Amino acid sequence: VLLNPGDRVAVENPSYLAALQVFQGYEVDVHPIASDDDGMRMDALEAALAQGPVRMIYLTPTFQNPKGTTLALERRQRLVELAGRHQVPVVEDDPYGELRYAGSRLPTLASASAGNAEVIFLSTFSKTLAPGLRVGWAVASGPMIRAMAVAKQSTDLHTNTLTQRALAQLLRTFDLKAHVARLCAVYGERCRTMLGALQRSFPQGAQWTRPQGGLFLWCQLPDGVSTERLLAAAVAQKVAFVPGDPFFTGAPAHPYLRLNFSNRPPEAIEDGIGRLGRVLAQALAAAPVGQVESVHARARPARRL
Amino acid sequence: VLLNPGDRVAVENPSYLAALQVFQGYEVDVHPIASDDDGMRMDALEAALAQGPVRMIYLTPTFQNPKGTTLALERRQRLVELAGRHQVPVVEDDPYGELRYAGSRLPTLASASAGNAEVIFLSTFSKTLAPGLRVGWAVASGPMIRAMAVAKQSTDLHTNTLTQRALAQLLRTFDLKAHVARLCAVYGERCRTMLGALQRSFPQGAQWTRPQGGLFLWCQLPDGVSTERLLAAAVAQKVAFVPGDPFFTGAPAHPYLRLNFSNRPPEAIEDGIGRLGRVLAQALAAAPVGQVESVHARARPARRL
Repeated sequence: VLLNPGDRVAVENPSYLAALQVFQGYEVDVHPIASDDDGMRMDALEAALAQGPVRMIYLTPTFQNPKGTTLALERRQRLVELAGRHQVPVVEDDPYGELRYAGSRLPTLASASAGNAEVIFLSTFSKTLAPGLRVGWAVASGPMIRAMAVAKQSTDLHTNTLTQRALAQLLRTFDLKAHVARLCAVYGERCRTMLGALQRSFPQGAQWTRPQGGLFLWCQLPDGVSTERLLAAAVAQKVAFVPGDPFFTGAPAHPYLRLNFSNRPPEAIEDGIGRLGRVLAQALAAAPVGQVESVHARARPARRL
Repeated sequence: VLLNPGDRVAVENPSYLAALQVFQGYEVDVHPIASDDDGMRMDALEAALAQGPVRMIYLTPTFQNPKGTTLALERRQRLVELAGRHQVPVVEDDPYGELRYAGSRLPTLASASAGNAEVIFLSTFSKTLAPGLRVGWAVASGPMIRAMAVAKQSTDLHTNTLTQRALAQLLRTFDLKAHVARLCAVYGERCRTMLGALQRSFPQGAQWTRPQGGLFLWCQLPDGVSTERLLAAAVAQKVAFVPGDPFFTGAPAHPYLRLNFSNRPPEAIEDGIGRLGRVLAQALAAAPVGQVESVHARARPARRL
């Protein structure tokens, strides 16, 4: 609906892997915007907008995938102000926003913009009810929704109506709010457990984000560790993670891991992070820093999204 | 999976409207192949293959949408022979093949090719169980299925798993074969009713296909009738049809209607075709042929897929 091949799309770097794959499929020019613990950096976005036309901004402002970080309030205000001034549509991907375990809810970009920017807000039942249902929703202006409906009709005619009706019935008869509150209690405990386990089990030099919600946290490893080799060693110990490289538009500056904390009970998280910490310590001990650094540098160019 | 922008795709003309829209969205060069009452004409396909590379052949060999016609046996054999020789993948769209009311089942292109051509066979539960489920299937070579799975993952991750499980359970506990036999009895009667009603109610100069199955028949009207105006007049009489123009890759040589016979009981079909015949007779009487011909010629260029 919004993009032609070659159009420039601004995305957080790192960003949701599947979104990067979709953009690649449509042959657009993905322009990475640096991020920190407060989400996408507005100075970097402003520099990109000054460089030339940007046709779309894509981001997950709340509990980002893969980092778990959240776009700070003043950046939200700045982002919609910039998007409005440059007339760039913003796709606000918000699958995790309801899963908050700490801190206060922030306004969505859609509400912060108050109509000044064209914000397309996306959410889903995948993280609160069941991913297998494949039902989500979009909030956008009337003309945008009509254009998206035409594109969707051409893709799959429509989403399964039986499931949509079942969901509508569920929303009438099931207390989704209470269910989300239960999820938040369970996932929040698991998140805190993982943060504590990382502190106890991970070696010096590793650092990680401290999410206030969502499903993931993001861990930076000492330079020189090959996340691919580490994954093989971890899987041999029956613990897995997602290597960070594919979440970047190019080769990342450091080795990263995405860790999921929502899926397993606290005891398993303690145990798993303990095993991962030992595997990581062995990897660091096995090779002096100079040597593993060259291994990492050699391994990286082979990664392609 | 198969096409880049500008690649040439051979399609029956007329062809399934939504397929044409998908091809247009991917910016391929849709090359129309003439058809008659026995489906796609193999002399026309051979001429297209001789003109230059064709990257895909798309057709609905059995009870085609919109015409209701079926590709003759000798053409099926010829098509897979040509496709194999020129190494062109064939997409065999078969949503209606199980809905046969007369004549004998013909081999699918997939089975006729016996592995000589790359045939991607597509079917669906939409016409036998429920279109709202949005579940279908594909039969193709292993490498093709793997490539299609990657493309589907990038589009929507996967089809609703709850519905797939419900369908799998239904196929174990429900006699789908008996259900399709019931559909064939009901739809076959409706098809025969419509053919009889057309004979009685449509004016001289109209002609139509005589399908052996499927959901649609295709009616050619006397030249000069504007199907858009006819539709407005018909809807005022509470009867509707689908104008033929959008099923063509360009402006059609004659005005056409697509008529659905499966959806309404015989009495309603008799009544509806009677009303449509009267509206058509009035349209023909209201304007001398020369005048309506110019109206039709003027109206056509405005249609775009």
